[in-house]
Parts: sequence; C-alpha cells; structure tokens
Amino acid sequence: MRQAFHEQLDAIFADLADLCGDVEGAVRLATEALLTGDASVAERVISGDAEIDHKRELIEDSGFMLLSLQQPVASDLRTVVAALRMVGDLERMGDLSVHVAKIARLRVPNIAVPEPMRPTLVRMAEIAEDMVRRTSLVIADRDIDEAKALAHADEEMDDLRRATFAEMLSADWSHGVEAAIDVALLGRYYERIADHAVSVANRVVFVVTGETPYSVEV
Amino acid sequence: MRQAFHEQLDAIFADLADLCGDVEGAVRLATEALLTGDASVAERVISGDAEIDHKRELIEDSGFMLLSLQQPVASDLRTVVAALRMVGDLERMGDLSVHVAKIARLRVPNIAVPEPMRPTLVRMAEIAEDMVRRTSLVIADRDIDEAKALAHADEEMDDLRRATFAEMLSADWSHGVEAAIDVALLGRYYERIADHAVSVANRVVFVVTGETPYSVEV
Repeated sequence: MRQAFHEQLDAIFADLADLCGDVEGAVRLATEALLTGDASVAERVISGDAEIDHKRELIEDSGFMLLSLQQPVASDLRTVVAALRMVGDLERMGDLSVHVAKIARLRVPNIAVPEPMRPTLVRMAEIAEDMVRRTSLVIADRDIDEAKALAHADEEMDDLRRATFAEMLSADWSHGVEAAIDVALLGRYYERIADHAVSVANRVVFVVTGETPYSVEV
Repeated sequence: MRQAFHEQLDAIFADLADLCGDVEGAVRLATEALLTGDASVAERVISGDAEIDHKRELIEDSGFMLLSLQQPVASDLRTVVAALRMVGDLERMGDLSVHVAKIARLRVPNIAVPEPMRPTLVRMAEIAEDMVRRTSLVIADRDIDEAKALAHADEEMDDLRRATFAEMLSADWSHGVEAAIDVALLGRYYERIADHAVSVANRVVFVVTGETPYSVEV
C-alpha cells in the first residue's frame, strides 16, 4: 500500500516537472513574440494554454484520487496537498505568459517594448525563464538547496522593475503613454512569474523539511 | 466521528467567511487611501495584512489537522481541499489591497488617480468591494445561486478596465506617464481581486455540486 502510494506520488511529481517544462516553453515563446512582434508565435502561446490547463486538471484528478484511495497522513498528506497547490501556481504562470503574448499580439506589426527599454525587459524575461527552468529541476529532484537559492533569484527582478519605472518617469521618456503602460504591465507579469516560481520552490522545501523557509504565496 | 468532522468543517468555513470580511475591510480602506491620499489609512492596510496572513495560517493548520485526524473521503475530502485553496485566494486578495494602498502611499500628498479617471476607478473599486462582500455570504451560506451570479459580476469590471485604456491612450490624455502607469496597475489589481472572488465562489459551487461551473483559477 505504501509502495503504491509513493509510486503514484512520484508520478504526480514527474507530471508537475513536465508541466513546469511546458510553462518554461510558454514563457520563452511569449518573450520571443514580444521581442520580434511575431503574431504567429504569440498565437502559439495563447492557444497552447489549453494544453497547460488540461494537464493541470489531470494532475489535480490524480492528486484527489491519491488522497481518496490511499488516505495518507502526516508528511505524505502534506506532500499531496502541496502538489495540488503547486499545480495551481504552474497554471497561473502559464496564464501570465498568455498575458505577455497578448500584449505582443496587440502591438503587431510593431514591437511593444521601446528600443532603450529592451535590454532591461530582455533581462527580466531571462530571469523569469531561468527561474522556471530551475523550478522544474527543484520539483524533479526535490532539490532543497536549489529551491532555497531560487528564493533569492527574484531580487534582481525587483531591481530591474524599479529601473523600468525610473526610466519611464524620467524627463527623457519619449515613447508615450501606451509604451509605458505596456512596459509596466509586462514588468508585473514577469515579476509574478518569478513570484510563483519561488512559491513552488518554497512548497518543495515545505514538502521535504516540513518547514516553510519564507512566506509562501498562492 | 462524522459529526465531529462536520462541526470542524463548519468552523473552517466560518473562519473563511470571517477572513473574507477582513479582506473586504482591506479593499475598502485601500480604496479610501487611494481616493483621499491619506497615508495613515494606507499604512493601516499595509500593516493589517500581517493579521490576514496569520489567519490564513491558522485556517491552513485546521484544514491539515482535519485531513490528518478524520481522513475524509469523496465529497468531504473535496471540501477540505477546496477550503485550503480558498484561503489562498483570500490571502492573495489581501496582498492586492496592499498593492493598491502602496500606490496611494507613494503619491501622498497627491492623489494617484487623476480627476477625470476618478469615476471609473471608483466604480471598479465598488465592484471589487461588493464582490468580496458577496463572497463572504457565498462562503457562510454555501449559496450556489449567489456564487453563480458572482461569476458574471466581473464583466462590468472588464468593460471599465478597457475604458481606462481607451481614455489613457486618447489624444486628450494630459496627465502624463506616471498617472497612466498607476491607473493601469490599479485596474489590474482591482480586476485580480474580482477574479479571486469569482474563483472562491466557483470553489464553493464545486464543493456543493461536485462540478466546476466555469474555469477555476488559482
């Protein structure tokens, strides 16, 4: 019974890592759409979200079935419930990639990000994508050290976001209101992707150690 | 045993409704801070969030203990897991109120919302606050009809948000980049508060009927 439980639990974590890989692809493509203004790439992210939502449902069903058939207690129970929350984070990260892709699509054939802002946005997107990639590894290997490192990886993101505001509010800003709104929202979306990655990593720490290292947000 | 289970489950739902009441207060005060530029009101929202986070932890602990001691199955299990997710939504709505309050505080002694945009933002805030208030009732009474009505209450919110963009991007906009960014982010925060209210309401429908009426987002 316990062996069956742990096999099923491992299968759920493998599915979570797989879903996280899909999310990483969504973040990467959304950024590509944003930086190239390619509507077809944006469409792929937007239509691809249905697959992420579907996988989320399958993982939730597995989790509920596991709870119901095996009735785990203590740390096993905590692990299944944490997995059910992680899948919510991952699905939300997919939604945020769709938001990025929709801003890209809205500005086609133009590019939403003004040229001087490009390096900052590129770096924010890189951090977000890298954090999602590392989150897959944290889930797959239940790697606590990597999870704890991730909790600090979004500090640069916060600095970059502040830098975008400083630039948009300076007297030199010549790209108008529309570009400023786009950049403010894009910054928010990448920041939230990073937040959810940290949240997933913290949940893995909680699963393994029983303790929450930092505040875990849903 | 089953009677004890249902008493404890009722207690958790009462705590969720109470927490939702706190969130309603946070949304109301954040809006007051925003519209009056009163830093002390903004501070109350920001410092008050610790209490919401604390209540969230207590409800989570109750939920885990209930799962662990009573080992519910089928619809009882589904209900406890749904409660654990609802508390995440509610805490997040508290965080979003803090984001609103922080924009208010950032602009003191000025007011973040330009005068011509005020009626639209006031209406968005009213809708958000009203949805949170109705969500408390949905939780307390497990009122499915009200829950289903809530799922459509955010349609006006979407229309209003589109209206803010149209106004900010018109040639008449004379309030600059800073105000536009503030309004874009405020619109996003109120919209997300409404989204989470719908999510909680949908979870209550799921608890009572076993079916998800609309897509449930975390």
